[in-house]
Amino acid sequence: MSPVSPLAPEAFPELAQVAGVEIATHAAGIRYTGRDDVLIVRMPEETTVAGVFTQSLCASAPVDWCKRILPSGRARALVVNSGNANAFTGSAGESATALTARVVAEALGVAPEEIHLASTGVIGESLPEDVLSAELPLAAKALEPSSAISWSAAANAIRTTDTFAKGASATTPSGVTVTGIAKGSGMIAPDMATMLGFVFTDASVAPEVLQQMLSRSTVGSYNRITVDSDTSTSDTVMLFATGAGDTSPITSIDDPAAAELQQALDVVNLDLAHQIVRDGEGATKFVEVTVQGATSEESASTIALAIANSPLVKTAIAAEDANWGRVVMAVGKAGQPADRDRMKIWIGDELVADEGMQSPAYDEASATAHLQHDDVVVRVDVGVGAHAATVWTCDLTHGYIEINAGYRS
Amino acid sequence: MSPVSPLAPEAFPELAQVAGVEIATHAAGIRYTGRDDVLIVRMPEETTVAGVFTQSLCASAPVDWCKRILPSGRARALVVNSGNANAFTGSAGESATALTARVVAEALGVAPEEIHLASTGVIGESLPEDVLSAELPLAAKALEPSSAISWSAAANAIRTTDTFAKGASATTPSGVTVTGIAKGSGMIAPDMATMLGFVFTDASVAPEVLQQMLSRSTVGSYNRITVDSDTSTSDTVMLFATGAGDTSPITSIDDPAAAELQQALDVVNLDLAHQIVRDGEGATKFVEVTVQGATSEESASTIALAIANSPLVKTAIAAEDANWGRVVMAVGKAGQPADRDRMKIWIGDELVADEGMQSPAYDEASATAHLQHDDVVVRVDVGVGAHAATVWTCDLTHGYIEINAGYRS
Repeated sequence: MSPVSPLAPEAFPELAQVAGVEIATHAAGIRYTGRDDVLIVRMPEETTVAGVFTQSLCASAPVDWCKRILPSGRARALVVNSGNANAFTGSAGESATALTARVVAEALGVAPEEIHLASTGVIGESLPEDVLSAELPLAAKALEPSSAISWSAAANAIRTTDTFAKGASATTPSGVTVTGIAKGSGMIAPDMATMLGFVFTDASVAPEVLQQMLSRSTVGSYNRITVDSDTSTSDTVMLFATGAGDTSPITSIDDPAAAELQQALDVVNLDLAHQIVRDGEGATKFVEVTVQGATSEESASTIALAIANSPLVKTAIAAEDANWGRVVMAVGKAGQPADRDRMKIWIGDELVADEGMQSPAYDEASATAHLQHDDVVVRVDVGVGAHAATVWTCDLTHGYIEINAGYRS
Repeated sequence: MSPVSPLAPEAFPELAQVAGVEIATHAAGIRYTGRDDVLIVRMPEETTVAGVFTQSLCASAPVDWCKRILPSGRARALVVNSGNANAFTGSAGESATALTARVVAEALGVAPEEIHLASTGVIGESLPEDVLSAELPLAAKALEPSSAISWSAAANAIRTTDTFAKGASATTPSGVTVTGIAKGSGMIAPDMATMLGFVFTDASVAPEVLQQMLSRSTVGSYNRITVDSDTSTSDTVMLFATGAGDTSPITSIDDPAAAELQQALDVVNLDLAHQIVRDGEGATKFVEVTVQGATSEESASTIALAIANSPLVKTAIAAEDANWGRVVMAVGKAGQPADRDRMKIWIGDELVADEGMQSPAYDEASATAHLQHDDVVVRVDVGVGAHAATVWTCDLTHGYIEINAGYRS
């Protein structure tokens, strides 16, 4: 096991109960021993659901399954296993998802098409159907209302190479609760480091509104983080609204209660996304990259991701080396509008480059001092517009090589 | 200094003389001491030139210079310095390129606009004008006809982090010679690892034909290699045709002599491109990635580059780990047409995956044995068309982190 990331929070947060959510975790022994590797979440009949999935053309069988049943907007349960991604498994993969849904549906007395699935772990190996058949009904027996303790168990059950469990809660002024758990420690390694995020609220929200809210929220959170530019076959973020709270149903995105809920949702998703970066494979620095002065937010985001994904920028930050030429390089290769001769670069608060050359007042010692912190900020003004975007990443270290060149053997 | 790459050729090749080409190398002390850091190549009045340059929006001052004078299609000299890239240097950079061209033009009795320039080294520092003024005329005095010895000196003078000098020669059936030198050991690191390639032929070729030939040749060579997905501010490939050989002038791309020359040019450029990959920072494996069954060559190339640039694929190869799930992941994220359920993957000659799942006959020991070689082949059939492309890369190792996290400090 890898040691806990130096960027991990001090402790797992005390997550808020979400009315209507029941949780069970179970050690099914699919791949791991001595730990829970299955999570079942049961939710009431009124529950609506929204989802955002990997763009990969090689999506896993559970992603295919969820995409197929999502249009109903309804969910009664979520089933997650860790240790096996059920990806690139052909018809055996489809069969395993159908079996999982059927077995859990029977145990809970609901329809298979109301059960959402996610799997994370090795690619290309079939899920053992006999284990699923035997263990899932046992898991379902352990359901109990969500609580700080069961949330913690849930966040742990979905871990693979994660060095710490990830969770966040927020509450709106009207008293709606949003609690989420996530896993992921590469962005996103295909083996064991898929990104999964599951967020639950006791609000009552129409499915199409819920989907709008989730899509908006992922743009500024999960879509703005990168560890190594790789994308999993299984990335899944789902938002469940149980409607079991005391607040009125939200049927329009323009409802003031929707704005409140959106804010809480954004807080939870951004927190979870940052925790994933803080658990980036081999990470020793949490890096915020802001690009401003761009022609559009999308352009700013593309440039910021070019910086955040550059192996040369990431190794320089790992070395606490204020090698700003590498930032220039990354901006240059992004292929987005930028004016070399008006460009400004800051490391922390230190203006490093200005008007297309090294700033006359640049003090390298000050930039280096900033880079010695765990949390590092790089900011670039590309000098052509008024739009900005921020992305988050981690540095690239020997630890990344160690983890990824060593994992399977 | 880094040790010589384990993938280096046994010795620098004996490069063929090119009629009309004179070479001088010189230790100007711009940044390095105890080695040549300036190359001057003089060519006769009939010389035509073609160039291909970095797509970076933050191009260096010498790239700007060359792009400005290239439309004439004429060249009398090439001047290259190593140690300082003269990039992101604002008006000081422009001034240094003008000075360089003026000083060498005076020494050689030609016009400054006939002198092509390239610089490679650190970004953001100004070239010392007093050094250029004093040293370039001395360098020009050392010109002598190209020979195996002077080509070797030339290839060495343009090195930065390269662990070995790079050169290649080819001759057409009609007796036209093509000799090229190159440098680069990241694809392409921005500091000291810019890719530069300079190719010379004694053929007589009209400038517009020469440009067509060079553009064609770079597509299948330099544009198909990647070390770390980063792109330099200074990448430059130039082709000079001195016309000093005995063959008839080529004035059309449809001339049979053009086809012959194209072939020799492609051989030299591909050889140089492979040498750059073999000197990839930290490389221990030379990796060929072929994608077939794609809807177009461009699509095949995009998928192949997604595989070749994936840090997870590259670390798996470094570990000699037949972790083919990572290849699936990379195909999936490429965003190009591909049929997951018809996909085939080979490692060496071993069929690993077939019809969207692990091949029933897959023998992991055989795939692992292939990965133990220095030269590794990964092939993917994406099952949707008849087009293919091959790219080359190296593995990602602790050595890459060592070199790039340590370089400036």
